[in-house]
Amino acid sequence: MKIQKVTGDLTLKRSVDSGTEEQRATVQSIIHTVRSQGDRALRELTEKFDGARMFSLKVTQEEVNEAYEQLPKQMIDIIKEAADNIFTFHQKQLRQTWMYTDQSGSILGQKMTPLDSAGVYVPGGTAAYPSSVLMNVMPAKVAGVKRVVMVSPPGRDGRLPAGVLVAADIAGVKEIYKVGGAQAVAALAYGTETIRSVDKITGPGNIYVALAKREVFGDVDIDMIAGPSEIAVLADDTACPREIAADLLSQAEHDPRASSVLVTTSERLAEETAAEVERQLKELPREEIARASIDSYGSIYVAKDMEKAVETINQLAPEHLEIMTEHALQIVKDIRHAGAIFVGRYSSEPIGDYFAGPNHVLPTNGTARFSSPLNVDDFMKKSSIIMYSEQAYNKNYQKIAAFARLEGLEAHARAVEIRAEKK
Amino acid sequence: MKIQKVTGDLTLKRSVDSGTEEQRATVQSIIHTVRSQGDRALRELTEKFDGARMFSLKVTQEEVNEAYEQLPKQMIDIIKEAADNIFTFHQKQLRQTWMYTDQSGSILGQKMTPLDSAGVYVPGGTAAYPSSVLMNVMPAKVAGVKRVVMVSPPGRDGRLPAGVLVAADIAGVKEIYKVGGAQAVAALAYGTETIRSVDKITGPGNIYVALAKREVFGDVDIDMIAGPSEIAVLADDTACPREIAADLLSQAEHDPRASSVLVTTSERLAEETAAEVERQLKELPREEIARASIDSYGSIYVAKDMEKAVETINQLAPEHLEIMTEHALQIVKDIRHAGAIFVGRYSSEPIGDYFAGPNHVLPTNGTARFSSPLNVDDFMKKSSIIMYSEQAYNKNYQKIAAFARLEGLEAHARAVEIRAEKK
Repeated sequence: MKIQKVTGDLTLKRSVDSGTEEQRATVQSIIHTVRSQGDRALRELTEKFDGARMFSLKVTQEEVNEAYEQLPKQMIDIIKEAADNIFTFHQKQLRQTWMYTDQSGSILGQKMTPLDSAGVYVPGGTAAYPSSVLMNVMPAKVAGVKRVVMVSPPGRDGRLPAGVLVAADIAGVKEIYKVGGAQAVAALAYGTETIRSVDKITGPGNIYVALAKREVFGDVDIDMIAGPSEIAVLADDTACPREIAADLLSQAEHDPRASSVLVTTSERLAEETAAEVERQLKELPREEIARASIDSYGSIYVAKDMEKAVETINQLAPEHLEIMTEHALQIVKDIRHAGAIFVGRYSSEPIGDYFAGPNHVLPTNGTARFSSPLNVDDFMKKSSIIMYSEQAYNKNYQKIAAFARLEGLEAHARAVEIRAEKK
Repeated sequence: MKIQKVTGDLTLKRSVDSGTEEQRATVQSIIHTVRSQGDRALRELTEKFDGARMFSLKVTQEEVNEAYEQLPKQMIDIIKEAADNIFTFHQKQLRQTWMYTDQSGSILGQKMTPLDSAGVYVPGGTAAYPSSVLMNVMPAKVAGVKRVVMVSPPGRDGRLPAGVLVAADIAGVKEIYKVGGAQAVAALAYGTETIRSVDKITGPGNIYVALAKREVFGDVDIDMIAGPSEIAVLADDTACPREIAADLLSQAEHDPRASSVLVTTSERLAEETAAEVERQLKELPREEIARASIDSYGSIYVAKDMEKAVETINQLAPEHLEIMTEHALQIVKDIRHAGAIFVGRYSSEPIGDYFAGPNHVLPTNGTARFSSPLNVDDFMKKSSIIMYSEQAYNKNYQKIAAFARLEGLEAHARAVEIRAEKK
């Protein structure tokens, strides 16, 4: 890994992948076809793209039962325990409706209501992660969303991976459809004979899925478009190069475009970590992917002091941040931009991916500047409540009418005045 | 207004305005020009579209002072009082960072951090509303956003309306630029020599502004793309047709595409309200706009009972909902989808537009199914905190490694195991 000194400001040059003209056109055409032809289009596109001829798109209870039989009992228990931890953490995010009465007797408030329905996209093939099923579904369940639907492209055998089905069942998903790609997003957004439309679509996917989500955004809500995964480690002289290297590589193995960065105040640590990364790389089954990622997007920055190091982290706004320093928890208050912050040596990043409880769907690509981990708020919406009292009305209606007239909106002024006329 | 019985489900056919191919191309070209030419492009485009030759884009303190002199003292006081009310309500939305320690001694939490910066777009001409300045800026201020920037297209005289400048000053905006359209959005998203980029762009605008916001979404955050305004009134026999008609017309005067709907259980009220709308329409200065709106998008629905009426409202998912019935507050709990809910006869909708405190930037076009009023959360983001304890690590690392291997991610498994090896 390249070691460099932090001199000026770090600027990230990466941007959202908007796809090619051709990809955009393909996605628009698929959406149009699904809207006009419904289930028939889903079947034809699934045969075309996934090589599976589907009689029924819906996963049966039998398939779920078989999935349970395929997984070791111990693995099922681990998934259940992870689901419990995720549930517990997300429950702390749940907010209630509130109202208050002000001095004039008016009631003001904010009503919290879960979405009616949500759809979770789960990628196919090797990216079909049971953990992602839990992380996308549990916040919706905690929010109180009644109808949570899952879609995922089947293998050539017309089936979904056992781990994915078991995770979905543990998370409480009752409706699972074997369909993927832009066609699945279109079905979730606009509905077909079999799949009723939902209010929000979440979950990762390839470029076609991402473009389809962008395309339907506004008709339904979507989560952020995820980019490649990122980790930044902030470490001082007290941290362990072997552990840092292992954590950097756990991101690097995801994707050749994943980014793994160490920011440290210690030149010794920088050098030892670089050597450790090289040593551990050779032993990885996914060495090729991890090496491509480290070569292209891996960096070690040496900062002159912890203040400069922290500022560098804030410029990176990483998806995952590990703080491995003395008094690590005290540094958290200075971190302005990071999706998830892992504090201390026992908080290896995969602990958050699978088990601790906080969500692993996190803002990538520097969007931690303005975005949050997937959370319960994403599956609820607010409605303002205004119950004006007669006293407040009498005191204020002339002011409100004056304000409306300043903006040239006479009917607004009259609407508030008309209540006074009547008396 | 047309009166009809509610029979089946109501489906809204409206959709997001995605603009024409030509409009999209224009916006892409403008964004490209601003990114490559900076301030020079802003000046040229402002001369081209707004007919104003600008020496300096930034509003001076002198211009703000002059604006105060142009407004009546009483009007300034009303704007200040409205700002106070908006501040008070939005403070109740402000959430704090939380952490808890679980049984194993691990610390889990959620850190709340304001965005570093936000940009507010204020439309020009007759749609330059001081109230919108307050409603967009105050939540950002309450959130703790340090840098709030405002942009608005100047008139031919190179100036902004006094009301807008005074509202911005009262709301605490220190940076105001006289530039509008897609070029202003591009400047906020990517920065120029004069305008530093921001993390989030909010505020309404014409189709070019809306398309530009869509285009930069991902590089910065945006608020929802607003559609035409909507009101639905839910009323029983106890309500007053004159007041309902006045409130319906206060929406109708905004835009020929605005939508005003009454849902009632009373046929008498339906007929009297229709007559009142006609009578009041004739007296409005903006009669032409309001009549076009009422003719195209105005409807009165008669439902067989209150349950059916409420279900109709939930299908409409209106931006504004007024409940004028007996025991109106009790009905609020049954409303699932509405941007703002106005309860009782004194809660005329313009009270919320200007003065009561809750935000008037609300989800339109049925998006209240999944969207919220602009609020303090929109200007903050969350970061998860995970500080795993040694005890939790020892108890769980093998489970986590097993989960990682189920997903085929060996480096993830090793990263958690390596902490144990060392001991």
